[in-house]
Amino acid sequence: MKIAIVNGPNLNLLGKREPHKYGSTSMTEILDNLRAAFPHVELTYYQSNHEGDLIDCLHRLGYQTPVDGIILNAGAYTHTSLALADAIAAIPVPVVEVHLTNIFSREPIRHTSLIAPVCRGSISGFGAKVYQLALSSFMS
Amino acid sequence: MKIAIVNGPNLNLLGKREPHKYGSTSMTEILDNLRAAFPHVELTYYQSNHEGDLIDCLHRLGYQTPVDGIILNAGAYTHTSLALADAIAAIPVPVVEVHLTNIFSREPIRHTSLIAPVCRGSISGFGAKVYQLALSSFMS
Amino acid sequence: MKIAIVNGPNLNLLGKREPHKYGSTSMTEILDNLRAAFPHVELTYYQSNHEGDLIDCLHRLGYQTPVDGIILNAGAYTHTSLALADAIAAIPVPVVEVHLTNIFSREPIRHTSLIAPVCRGSISGFGAKVYQLALSSFMS
Amino acid sequence: MKIAIVNGPNLNLLGKREPHKYGSTSMTEILDNLRAAFPHVELTYYQSNHEGDLIDCLHRLGYQTPVDGIILNAGAYTHTSLALADAIAAIPVPVVEVHLTNIFSREPIRHTSLIAPVCRGSISGFGAKVYQLALSSFMS
Amino acid sequence: MKIAIVNGPNLNLLGKREPHKYGSTSMTEILDNLRAAFPHVELTYYQSNHEGDLIDCLHRLGYQTPVDGIILNAGAYTHTSLALADAIAAIPVPVVEVHLTNIFSREPIRHTSLIAPVCRGSISGFGAKVYQLALSSFMS
Amino acid sequence: MKIAIVNGPNLNLLGKREPHKYGSTSMTEILDNLRAAFPHVELTYYQSNHEGDLIDCLHRLGYQTPVDGIILNAGAYTHTSLALADAIAAIPVPVVEVHLTNIFSREPIRHTSLIAPVCRGSISGFGAKVYQLALSSFMS
Amino acid sequence: MKIAIVNGPNLNLLGKREPHKYGSTSMTEILDNLRAAFPHVELTYYQSNHEGDLIDCLHRLGYQTPVDGIILNAGAYTHTSLALADAIAAIPVPVVEVHLTNIFSREPIRHTSLIAPVCRGSISGFGAKVYQLALSSFMS
Amino acid sequence: MKIAIVNGPNLNLLGKREPHKYGSTSMTEILDNLRAAFPHVELTYYQSNHEGDLIDCLHRLGYQTPVDGIILNAGAYTHTSLALADAIAAIPVPVVEVHLTNIFSREPIRHTSLIAPVCRGSISGFGAKVYQLALSSFMS
Amino acid sequence: MKIAIVNGPNLNLLGKREPHKYGSTSMTEILDNLRAAFPHVELTYYQSNHEGDLIDCLHRLGYQTPVDGIILNAGAYTHTSLALADAIAAIPVPVVEVHLTNIFSREPIRHTSLIAPVCRGSISGFGAKVYQLALSSFMS
Amino acid sequence: MKIAIVNGPNLNLLGKREPHKYGSTSMTEILDNLRAAFPHVELTYYQSNHEGDLIDCLHRLGYQTPVDGIILNAGAYTHTSLALADAIAAIPVPVVEVHLTNIFSREPIRHTSLIAPVCRGSISGFGAKVYQLALSSFMS
Amino acid sequence: MKIAIVNGPNLNLLGKREPHKYGSTSMTEILDNLRAAFPHVELTYYQSNHEGDLIDCLHRLGYQTPVDGIILNAGAYTHTSLALADAIAAIPVPVVEVHLTNIFSREPIRHTSLIAPVCRGSISGFGAKVYQLALSSFMS
Amino acid sequence: MKIAIVNGPNLNLLGKREPHKYGSTSMTEILDNLRAAFPHVELTYYQSNHEGDLIDCLHRLGYQTPVDGIILNAGAYTHTSLALADAIAAIPVPVVEVHLTNIFSREPIRHTSLIAPVCRGSISGFGAKVYQLALSSFMS
Repeated sequence: MKIAIVNGPNLNLLGKREPHKYGSTSMTEILDNLRAAFPHVELTYYQSNHEGDLIDCLHRLGYQTPVDGIILNAGAYTHTSLALADAIAAIPVPVVEVHLTNIFSREPIRHTSLIAPVCRGSISGFGAKVYQLALSSFMS
Repeated sequence: MKIAIVNGPNLNLLGKREPHKYGSTSMTEILDNLRAAFPHVELTYYQSNHEGDLIDCLHRLGYQTPVDGIILNAGAYTHTSLALADAIAAIPVPVVEVHLTNIFSREPIRHTSLIAPVCRGSISGFGAKVYQLALSSFMS
Repeated sequence: MKIAIVNGPNLNLLGKREPHKYGSTSMTEILDNLRAAFPHVELTYYQSNHEGDLIDCLHRLGYQTPVDGIILNAGAYTHTSLALADAIAAIPVPVVEVHLTNIFSREPIRHTSLIAPVCRGSISGFGAKVYQLALSSFMS
Repeated sequence: MKIAIVNGPNLNLLGKREPHKYGSTSMTEILDNLRAAFPHVELTYYQSNHEGDLIDCLHRLGYQTPVDGIILNAGAYTHTSLALADAIAAIPVPVVEVHLTNIFSREPIRHTSLIAPVCRGSISGFGAKVYQLALSSFMS
Repeated sequence: MKIAIVNGPNLNLLGKREPHKYGSTSMTEILDNLRAAFPHVELTYYQSNHEGDLIDCLHRLGYQTPVDGIILNAGAYTHTSLALADAIAAIPVPVVEVHLTNIFSREPIRHTSLIAPVCRGSISGFGAKVYQLALSSFMS
Repeated sequence: MKIAIVNGPNLNLLGKREPHKYGSTSMTEILDNLRAAFPHVELTYYQSNHEGDLIDCLHRLGYQTPVDGIILNAGAYTHTSLALADAIAAIPVPVVEVHLTNIFSREPIRHTSLIAPVCRGSISGFGAKVYQLALSSFMS
Repeated sequence: MKIAIVNGPNLNLLGKREPHKYGSTSMTEILDNLRAAFPHVELTYYQSNHEGDLIDCLHRLGYQTPVDGIILNAGAYTHTSLALADAIAAIPVPVVEVHLTNIFSREPIRHTSLIAPVCRGSISGFGAKVYQLALSSFMS
Repeated sequence: MKIAIVNGPNLNLLGKREPHKYGSTSMTEILDNLRAAFPHVELTYYQSNHEGDLIDCLHRLGYQTPVDGIILNAGAYTHTSLALADAIAAIPVPVVEVHLTNIFSREPIRHTSLIAPVCRGSISGFGAKVYQLALSSFMS
Repeated sequence: MKIAIVNGPNLNLLGKREPHKYGSTSMTEILDNLRAAFPHVELTYYQSNHEGDLIDCLHRLGYQTPVDGIILNAGAYTHTSLALADAIAAIPVPVVEVHLTNIFSREPIRHTSLIAPVCRGSISGFGAKVYQLALSSFMS
Repeated sequence: MKIAIVNGPNLNLLGKREPHKYGSTSMTEILDNLRAAFPHVELTYYQSNHEGDLIDCLHRLGYQTPVDGIILNAGAYTHTSLALADAIAAIPVPVVEVHLTNIFSREPIRHTSLIAPVCRGSISGFGAKVYQLALSSFMS
Repeated sequence: MKIAIVNGPNLNLLGKREPHKYGSTSMTEILDNLRAAFPHVELTYYQSNHEGDLIDCLHRLGYQTPVDGIILNAGAYTHTSLALADAIAAIPVPVVEVHLTNIFSREPIRHTSLIAPVCRGSISGFGAKVYQLALSSFMS
Repeated sequence: MKIAIVNGPNLNLLGKREPHKYGSTSMTEILDNLRAAFPHVELTYYQSNHEGDLIDCLHRLGYQTPVDGIILNAGAYTHTSLALADAIAAIPVPVVEVHLTNIFSREPIRHTSLIAPVCRGSISGFGAKVYQLALSSFMS
């Protein structure tokens, strides 16, 4: 099974950026743990701070080098990018939305997700564990 | 480890009610599967259509017969019951919010969760699998 | 033909409560008149001030002791109970919404009915006569 | 007893127009059925697509050739015509508002009735039967 | 000097309609008084319940049989007719808006005037005297 | 091919009315140019300031003397007439919405079109050329 | 007859301040003209930029040195001073609201008058002539 | 004099629940102090987490075992229960609303009280002392 | 103990102004009663219709001639004066907000208090008795 | 004549992506047809999923390699990109906005175009034909 | 060069009031530093808690004793005083708005400045240094 | 001292683009002047029309090649980019927001800054001088 993890803006700073909010584990450690826990999953990873790059990436994962599922942490683009939502709707691969923090207990602008309506499901608020839960959601 | 699953209004009809939306698996089957998959978890179950009963239940699980975690599917009370949110905030047990459907792709009134801000995390949209994911979130 | 009349909060005080608004006829008299006017209808009656009881009752009338139609005066829950609306949607029996007063000429909070979208129809503003009109709506 | 039925815009197309929404019975058939069912009522009918004509008509039914009651299906003017509402308030004849469809399960702009606050009552959502129910509401 | 008074919907009932709100003087008496008070003004009068007729009338008064000023009581169309506002903007004759009642102490929907922005001025709330004040406003 | 052009309120003043906004070409000239450019199209023209007349006209073009397409410039009724939108939805002829000015760079009330959702398409902001573009849209 | 004219903030600059909006006539000239035109009216004048002074003044004109009517140009306090509205409601003297400009064709914040609901009437948009029209409104 | 204190959802946890917000005094201690301070008042106490129970209780205190006054801390139902407001309006006993915390310095959803408009008065923000102040309000 | 009562705009008219709303007792009588009931409290009184004076007064009571507590009836400034709220926050003396009427059963603009969030507590709706209750709130 | 077609996010998937909404013709075919139909127009094409690339492209078409007109299908950026609107306003070349679907009959977030106010005109809802109509709009 | 610094409500308490928010430097020290740093500027200072005094002061600085520029810290009146905005617009002297704190990271009511649209520029959030930056803005 | 100036979308056109709004000085001239005026500051400059590039740049200036302060003119991204705001919050370098125009006197969408709450301060409306003022704000 092929699963891609796609991270959006500012998530390259994970572990460094506001650790009281986002935790101090880096994405490298998170990926290592996931690969250990799910040895049979072929896991790829992509991060970009560019809305357009994330759209290109989704297209690629939908048509050129298709995967079985995508785990998307769209960061702040979750709340402002209708184009990203359109890209999710435009590809035949199921997408699961994740957030490290509970977005509903933050500022009002973060309570609305433009991408949620076109995702298979949403998981938010368990810190780094959201990636593991999302991976589990693809297991039968 | 002791975990309680608490279901709110109309979830007693699970499997019968609008199966195209909520699936045709009954809660009994879901619980059987969970107990099989998590043999070391002591799992209790409670359902009520009464807002007050759910509050009483949360108090009980918080103080009289305390558990290690609560998985709450508050159904429609998710969107209208500030009293339930207060009850969650009032007990020292972590609560995880679950929804069978992706509430963000339904009517606008279902996009707002009054209980989310006081829950540890939220999982919505994977059908019956949300209970399993929520249980996993309590595992270290 | 079996029809159930279900009344919500504060309607047990009908005849006593603010008679300039709700009239001075008690529910007993209203039921007597209805039974006289519709001798072939088997009419049952239920009232509760509890949102959960009303949901339980609708479930019962939908699955355990099914009727051919339900006349529901949800009182103030009309405007605040999404759970009641879900219960109406969850049962296979048609529901007709009634209100003694014209809810549109009262305070703005009473202009929106959460249950109307899932009812077969709505009748409001004719005093006690709404029950009779709703009953007629079930006659072919 | 003299009752007038007044229909607003696009209701001349009843039976032809979007029959899945409005039914396939024409207004002529509806009137025939009503006259048969209420032989003692002197029933008149008026339809116009013109807001001004409907106002003129209400004035006429209020002062020149007064009737005992008016059944008004104002169509889309229900939601946009404050002038029609003023006309209803300006005449001494009681008006009952009817709608073939359940306006509350349609688009949001149809959830607000400008005329409802000045009508005696409102009946919506039973198809052609609303005229019969409205007529009944005038019977003692 | 030629001045036209143009009255909108339901103002043909002036003196009869809700006299506690609009007074019991008929428009004929008002016009007689105005003609007596302003003998040098050539005063014409037009009333219609039809939005389209009022627009036609404004066009006529602007181009075919031009006047020096128009006093417009647009009744309820004040709050809903953008087309009437466009007609006022489309003619080269100054228009003064009048209302018998103080529209600001009535329901919120009457607090907004669509036509006010394109009128020379607005006078509301002095009963029948608004016509006289509006006429005075055209005197140098 | 039979195409009808239907113009709404104040468009009879085209060429005279606020020429800096709407241009100084009259509708007669526009029609002459269209007939010259599209010799094989049988072009009819109707204008009215009356909402009801426009509805009657659409009904006629839909059922009595059907055409292949309608080009509708509803003027200010675009933003206020739900009844006109219902009429468009009620007829089996495709309707194309046009506006001489770019309605989106004008006042906010003109940014919302009630009729757009039921039209085949919308063209706004090219002056008199919108009629020609709309006609082209009906060509295969 | 005793009438007081009360002017609010920035109106002491009349004639100097933005003359393209407010005209170039000073308040002294306006008062001279009014006294000439209404020789039998005992006219007093008060201006202040202080909300509290205006309230004190209204109290004085209501109880200590009562007048028969007050003409109030509250300037920007029209839109922000609920306390001024309370003062108008608290005195037994009728108040007429005036504005030199048509407040409805200015910024949205100027479309709402907090004092209008408690005034006898409102006159806006005729420049300095509004004082004369307001004075006329007190004449029988 | 007979006074009833009625407490709503989560107030059974008083003293235990978030003591930094609600204080650490239990309701038992509060009642003891009140009885000591007001020896001539016959004080009864009722608490429930059930909206319906609170309505039943108000009915009982209004008609079956009437009291002279009710002190109601409706907790979170203050902001969501229109049915409770209706119950207050439906009984002939004056009700005083109390809140331990200053609801206006909390989240926006707690700034609106549905029950306040039908209560005799409101007291919020003095901790446990609100019960004593409310009791005093019933003393002549 | 030193307590200051500070009254805002229009409260100098207490007893005279709209007695059906505000009662017919003058502030002098109220103060006499308070001094009689609380002989050990050194009670000062200040009233002004000027927002700035009230701010100056609060500063004075906070720093120059400090008191132990302030009872503030800010009248209409309650709803519009952010500067008064800042003044309350800027002084080290606790402030209790009072209103003679139940502000929640009046017009919507009076439902929001800008000063409540920075006050110790709020008491509204018991007529002149609010001053006595507020005084009691300062007693241990 | 030089015209550039600029397409925004997800339009590279045209023909593949949700064909029931966007049609199954690819952009290559559309361009071939346009070049055949308008042989004298020098047509260039650019597509990007990156907001910044689209801005760069508009700058280039405005200043470095200027064209006579731009046809812009901004996709989802239509509704979220104020920067794109600023870019259109910043160049001296006229831009025509096009949309394949009727954006007004889709979700509310798609009803507002941030770029429309700075475009010469808008064409939406005719499928692939919008490019041809937009090209025609540049022909004299 | 003559520059006036004008401070609004509660700024007389600077250094004393909530020092964690506004700093502990008094206005006297700030002025001393400014005079030292800008020896060629003739600097005057005015503070008032009265909206009316601030308006009077602006008028004086505009016409009686004109200055070359005004630095205005309107405190809470920034967000509520349209009259102050009118005063700024009414004088021929440029005004620069300053705020010690970053108003955009405070409560929503402080995010809107009524005076900003009529000021030359705005500087907020650098503590006492805002006065120095504003002074620099007047230097060529 | 190292300071970076970062400019967002369309600011590469400064001097060319709408000079009546943004002035005719190019960024090169502005930078030359700044370097002359602040010879001891090591000034770097970056501009991009890409939201993602600006985020990458802020990360770089925060962690790889850290500076002492950043002056950010985010152009239209000010009002739409939550991701940029997150990037500012994620780096340990203070950021000052600048705007050439007074954003508060432009369209409503430009009145809200998403980045302001996480910046040290904001300066807007003095043309090219804002960069100089921002630089000064970093001087002790």
